[in-house]
Amino acid sequence: MSQDATTEGDLRNTGMSLRHDREWDYELDRIVDAVEDRDADRVGLQFPEGLKRRGPAVADDLRALCDNDVTFLLSGQPCYGACDLDTFLMRRTDVFVHFGHSPMKESDKIIYVPLFSNVDPFPIMEEAVDDLPEEDVGLVTTAQHMNRFDEMVEWLEERDYDVHTRRGDDRLTHEGQVLGCNYASADIDAGQVLYVGGGKFHPLGLAMEHPDKRVLIADPVNNVVTLADTEKFLKQRYGAVHRAMDAQKWGVIFCTKIGQGRMDVAESIIEDNDDAYLITMDEVTPDRLRNFDMDAFVNTGCPRITTDDGPQFHKPMLTPGEYRIAVGDKPLDSLSFDTFHGTW
Amino acid sequence: MSQDATTEGDLRNTGMSLRHDREWDYELDRIVDAVEDRDADRVGLQFPEGLKRRGPAVADDLRALCDNDVTFLLSGQPCYGACDLDTFLMRRTDVFVHFGHSPMKESDKIIYVPLFSNVDPFPIMEEAVDDLPEEDVGLVTTAQHMNRFDEMVEWLEERDYDVHTRRGDDRLTHEGQVLGCNYASADIDAGQVLYVGGGKFHPLGLAMEHPDKRVLIADPVNNVVTLADTEKFLKQRYGAVHRAMDAQKWGVIFCTKIGQGRMDVAESIIEDNDDAYLITMDEVTPDRLRNFDMDAFVNTGCPRITTDDGPQFHKPMLTPGEYRIAVGDKPLDSLSFDTFHGTW
Repeated sequence: MSQDATTEGDLRNTGMSLRHDREWDYELDRIVDAVEDRDADRVGLQFPEGLKRRGPAVADDLRALCDNDVTFLLSGQPCYGACDLDTFLMRRTDVFVHFGHSPMKESDKIIYVPLFSNVDPFPIMEEAVDDLPEEDVGLVTTAQHMNRFDEMVEWLEERDYDVHTRRGDDRLTHEGQVLGCNYASADIDAGQVLYVGGGKFHPLGLAMEHPDKRVLIADPVNNVVTLADTEKFLKQRYGAVHRAMDAQKWGVIFCTKIGQGRMDVAESIIEDNDDAYLITMDEVTPDRLRNFDMDAFVNTGCPRITTDDGPQFHKPMLTPGEYRIAVGDKPLDSLSFDTFHGTW
Repeated sequence: MSQDATTEGDLRNTGMSLRHDREWDYELDRIVDAVEDRDADRVGLQFPEGLKRRGPAVADDLRALCDNDVTFLLSGQPCYGACDLDTFLMRRTDVFVHFGHSPMKESDKIIYVPLFSNVDPFPIMEEAVDDLPEEDVGLVTTAQHMNRFDEMVEWLEERDYDVHTRRGDDRLTHEGQVLGCNYASADIDAGQVLYVGGGKFHPLGLAMEHPDKRVLIADPVNNVVTLADTEKFLKQRYGAVHRAMDAQKWGVIFCTKIGQGRMDVAESIIEDNDDAYLITMDEVTPDRLRNFDMDAFVNTGCPRITTDDGPQFHKPMLTPGEYRIAVGDKPLDSLSFDTFHGTW
């Protein structure tokens, strides 16, 4: 395993040394076809945070390919997933293009351009198999690498692994795909799961949702193999639950983003607790919650805001399941990852 | 005039030493009547930033007065005016209450509760008249003090002033009312205008929109009389225009807030300039604009974001009029306040 300092972060011959923007496929032809088919006047373009800088250049390319009277509008709203469509822009444009994520729910109006990565996953998978001792292995990846998924399965099978894959629930588009909030594709009959993809965001969620499984990360972007270690996160979760046990006043957050609404969960808390207040917002940020004089918060929106950004908030923020522990409805050992099911 | 340090900020016997929350009129009866009339299940409550902390207590009072099955939802979205309704919450509740502003546009769905101030304006007006040498005087105030406006007019008339008042355009509800973005009510035949109200936000906008008039501030909240001085603001505006003169790539911001949309203005810029990109968002913040690699921005949304928060952005941000100066369409001396007309 390449966990030592000499290899972690070694970017030679990896994706980070490539010029991704030159290689990524924005699928302009597919967009231009839709603009022409629908005789569109206004076209909305939405990029996730890390790719927003590419927006103007993509708009330039599209302007060169479309009639002069087509107006392109770039979404300036924060965007963190396919759950997070800019519905204002979507409703006010004839064609709406969402880049960087696969469909959470298909719609004639929306063109999803997943932006497949051109990074070769196999060199780092070659390193990873040294640390996959069992024959049965689950395989998962993100939207960016789905175009190589079948190849990855074959590659592992050629090395005599029994590869377990599944499509999760209807929140996921593809077999083997994970989202930050949903790891149903790893609900397979194997004790070890290989995650192929960049960063630790997804595998940490995966390991939290499946604490019984060993999650190995083959990261072809940063050229590193590591084991997902949830210890820090779990300590934070238990800490937040304990700090919230004395809370009197609870703010219950309902997130208004199209794919993050769980009103039934929010209302069930309000109904049982006279000291709970329902607060609605799109972006759940420390600044916005500071306006409310609560002892603790429950976030029914994105669970990764709760688990990853939780320590940045001025008061403990819990998932709905953790709330039930804090108020004594459930035992402490029921603490688990707040998987997000369904679409909208 | 009380501009010296001993009186400015002296809060004895002023509004700041009162417990406003005990005195302000949340008009609960009017809200409860609407809830009963409409047999409402869900009631949305929206407060501006400075009053969001009061929300839970107001919800408690309303819960005590309404049937148990009515759910109250507090908006956690930022809110800076009647232009800034939480349309998500409005559309998903049976009664939607907007506190702290007067109606920009009437609607059966919305209950506007202006939250009239209980601060007595006359002691500070008594000080202010020492610095109102001319007989003709314009009088303006904000939504919070409109309940005393007629009394203020009488009070000045008793002191032999010829008081000029008018209702501005259809963005304003009341005669004599100003908004942060509209001072049409001061478009009167007098060289001096008395502004009665808290803070300098409104009178500075007033003085920018009417540079030919002397604007005297009688602030009954902070117990101080001052002259509105726009020098700092104007220096910043001219500085921003000059810095933007070399800009190649322009980001043109269309604000999606219900009362801040000027798509015609945004599109007219895009049509004339191939290096201009249309960007849509609700909150216009430095963080959000940092995602876009532009040389300068034009904000067609709230002009006070541009003038008051402008220096916080990483690149010059101009009003649409200032943009025309920066690109050479208009002379420098045409620089003026970006008044916002109309509703939605």
